[in-house]
Amino acid sequence: MNLFMKSTMALGLGVAVIATASIAGSHSSEKLNPAVAARQHQMQIVGYSIGILGAVAKGEMEYDAAMVSSAAKNLNALAQLDRASLWIEGTEQGATAGTRAKAEIWSDPDGFAEKFEALADASAALIDASDAAAVGAGMGDLGGSCKGCHEKYRGPKNE
Amino acid sequence: MNLFMKSTMALGLGVAVIATASIAGSHSSEKLNPAVAARQHQMQIVGYSIGILGAVAKGEMEYDAAMVSSAAKNLNALAQLDRASLWIEGTEQGATAGTRAKAEIWSDPDGFAEKFEALADASAALIDASDAAAVGAGMGDLGGSCKGCHEKYRGPKNE
Repeated sequence: MNLFMKSTMALGLGVAVIATASIAGSHSSEKLNPAVAARQHQMQIVGYSIGILGAVAKGEMEYDAAMVSSAAKNLNALAQLDRASLWIEGTEQGATAGTRAKAEIWSDPDGFAEKFEALADASAALIDASDAAAVGAGMGDLGGSCKGCHEKYRGPKNE
Repeated sequence: MNLFMKSTMALGLGVAVIATASIAGSHSSEKLNPAVAARQHQMQIVGYSIGILGAVAKGEMEYDAAMVSSAAKNLNALAQLDRASLWIEGTEQGATAGTRAKAEIWSDPDGFAEKFEALADASAALIDASDAAAVGAGMGDLGGSCKGCHEKYRGPKNE
């Protein structure tokens, strides 16, 4: 039996509300450039994992060490996915449909890499968060890493 | 400038054909349990990455060390995503919509873990593949790891 059954079953609704909000904003991946689709899949799991941590921080989901650790580990791993096969040059906003990736991602790869490192660091700090307050204490850096990247490297919503 | 620009631009079409075939078979994630959606996003990036390696192996995409290494590294990382927040008990086929995850995933977690380890091993072996033939030589183990898991832990297509 899965160790995490009880808490995750009980807490499913909180995750559902948060993750649905994230997913509802995405486009269907069927019409996208496959590299664009792949990185949007990456971001969807990022959003799902942050949703778990955010719900725990807000008290909407009961603290569960395994779930928190799992979400933080996955964020850390997703932040470190190799970008060469995902952020392919020529797949910026305006050049291909459905992406908000700004051209600066490719003109400033070191700056872009730093943003993913910030996400990796902020999520690593949450892997061993020992209660909901500790998760909450780490959410500022985590949210800041999202915002820091989106402000600089994400363009406006597509029409 | 991105180091991989030239090759990936030239090879985009091959990736597109393969990845589209994979994505076209997926359901919209908007109606899914969020954990189910998250692991389907995981599988979409797995499929995208395998598509790159398969295209190189078949000669449909020019060998490019950075692309091959990137796809293999990402497969390796995706195979090791922590399962506690993704494979949540109660989200098997029949219990929630749109998933083909068999109940055996939860009744036989060690066996299920071995399948992901097989994917991690097969992809690790491709990270340094030095030419298309080397990629091809590793595709058997890679495809076998997919098949081994799907045969045992994936149920029939949903209606």
